[in-house]
Amino acid sequence: MGIRLFITGGTFDKTYDEISGRLLFKDTHVQEMLQLGRCRLPVEVRTLMMVDSLEMTDADRQLVLQNCRAAAEERIVVTHGTDTMTDTARVLGEASLPKTIVLTGAMVPYAFGSSDGLFNLGSALSFVQALPHGVYVAMNGRCFAWDDVVKNRALGVFEPRG
Amino acid sequence: MGIRLFITGGTFDKTYDEISGRLLFKDTHVQEMLQLGRCRLPVEVRTLMMVDSLEMTDADRQLVLQNCRAAAEERIVVTHGTDTMTDTARVLGEASLPKTIVLTGAMVPYAFGSSDGLFNLGSALSFVQALPHGVYVAMNGRCFAWDDVVKNRALGVFEPRG
Amino acid sequence: MGIRLFITGGTFDKTYDEISGRLLFKDTHVQEMLQLGRCRLPVEVRTLMMVDSLEMTDADRQLVLQNCRAAAEERIVVTHGTDTMTDTARVLGEASLPKTIVLTGAMVPYAFGSSDGLFNLGSALSFVQALPHGVYVAMNGRCFAWDDVVKNRALGVFEPRG
Amino acid sequence: MGIRLFITGGTFDKTYDEISGRLLFKDTHVQEMLQLGRCRLPVEVRTLMMVDSLEMTDADRQLVLQNCRAAAEERIVVTHGTDTMTDTARVLGEASLPKTIVLTGAMVPYAFGSSDGLFNLGSALSFVQALPHGVYVAMNGRCFAWDDVVKNRALGVFEPRG
Repeated sequence: MGIRLFITGGTFDKTYDEISGRLLFKDTHVQEMLQLGRCRLPVEVRTLMMVDSLEMTDADRQLVLQNCRAAAEERIVVTHGTDTMTDTARVLGEASLPKTIVLTGAMVPYAFGSSDGLFNLGSALSFVQALPHGVYVAMNGRCFAWDDVVKNRALGVFEPRG
Repeated sequence: MGIRLFITGGTFDKTYDEISGRLLFKDTHVQEMLQLGRCRLPVEVRTLMMVDSLEMTDADRQLVLQNCRAAAEERIVVTHGTDTMTDTARVLGEASLPKTIVLTGAMVPYAFGSSDGLFNLGSALSFVQALPHGVYVAMNGRCFAWDDVVKNRALGVFEPRG
Repeated sequence: MGIRLFITGGTFDKTYDEISGRLLFKDTHVQEMLQLGRCRLPVEVRTLMMVDSLEMTDADRQLVLQNCRAAAEERIVVTHGTDTMTDTARVLGEASLPKTIVLTGAMVPYAFGSSDGLFNLGSALSFVQALPHGVYVAMNGRCFAWDDVVKNRALGVFEPRG
Repeated sequence: MGIRLFITGGTFDKTYDEISGRLLFKDTHVQEMLQLGRCRLPVEVRTLMMVDSLEMTDADRQLVLQNCRAAAEERIVVTHGTDTMTDTARVLGEASLPKTIVLTGAMVPYAFGSSDGLFNLGSALSFVQALPHGVYVAMNGRCFAWDDVVKNRALGVFEPRG
């Protein structure tokens, strides 16, 4: 059962640039994370963009949707910044593709020792195998349907819309 | 949906003892790992034993079974050494409890920088929520039914019995 | 031989804030680093400020100087942001205190897995014990006199003024 | 000022083998550590052996001595297991070479997140530049003359012979 993994950037992949002293995007860390997890799944990785999700445009979200639609795989994980993850989930959810799509990300960049990224990646790759068709957000052990999730920005936590 | 997490030791929890220069068991790292993953699930952790799975006895496996049976939770994760993980899975599987039980572990101790433990823990906590009743082994992104899994010791990989 | 360690902030101590997604200062990591290095020296740590060295004022530098002058210890390490480390070194150097003072820092925050901080801290604490009175900058294995060092900002490297 | 770095193995370089579940030696981590420390010194690295220092023979110590004598560099760091580091220091010290030689190691393997190795390496590379000819043991921030140091095995600490 092949899995497609689309990368869009987000906190997950931010890196510290030692010349400028800023967080920015260079290459993705996802391949390194799959190796660290000794992941034995057939995962095809493709980078769609490398952006802060606050800067993601409607056109960017359409690009994610197009790629999900066009992918040969029925099971898709999308790495995404947390700030607008639920917006992209909505765009994907409303398209009602006959696929299982799980969005995930991290509260802290993977390159930091204290990142939740590896935990979340292991989680997303598991939910995507086990859940029926639909679009989900998997963060910090929990999994939410696309139409029942919000990010509580004050706490930095994803919650049911309630 | 509460989750019970039983700890039995295994590579997962081995620590380097700087006085003796040996790998041994002290406290479990599971609480630290749940914090690192910023796990937002209601997980009750209990240590049943702290042993190398090569030293796990039949009585030890019965103890794991008893605890799974007696747990109030319907969803249970068991951390376990990889060498005899499939043996314990068999004992649990043959008991046909009306529960979802996922065994997991690590190829490299969590205390090593290069551990797959956090990835596997995120994975196990996800499969346990999404899968129907049964007993499973979740390692390195894959999930196996208890009666269709072997550890390939030469490669250090779990595979279907085939 | 007691050593005084003054903390002023800098890249060394920057932390990722998961709510704002920014690098900022919370508590210093120096105590944790001394523990990791299993440092057996009698080191007295005191935080003077927690600032990005680009924002350090003349008054801040005078405060560092006052504290170096007033310290009971003859051997002093100062952690400092790299951008203006040589400016503070000059203020301390021109005061010609009868003490050995070593400034150090990091190109990458300690909280990142890829930080040079622990290496530099071990280095600074060694140079401060072995060198005669004077003011020095210790970075990335090298040690420079305060009046013969510049930061090459394009390369992110400290060099002799030449 | 070129520095020679001789590797002999020891805790420093032990690695977890995920097939056997044992600590053993593969390649040295020293190059990786120098990169992490962004070390800007001209260091020539050469592996002489990769052994647990409890298994180091008299012939092995003579080999270390020969290499120190033959090295073009006047400043030499030797990485070494802690258990017999003081024995090798004695062999080197009694030879009274016109060189500065610093032995160092780690209480915990570098590959473990909790290693003191990077701190010690930064320290040894600094002492070797600053100290007069002689043979020294540099561990955990302290530096001892070869004829005034013992390892307190109960505490895992190096101390003056007293």
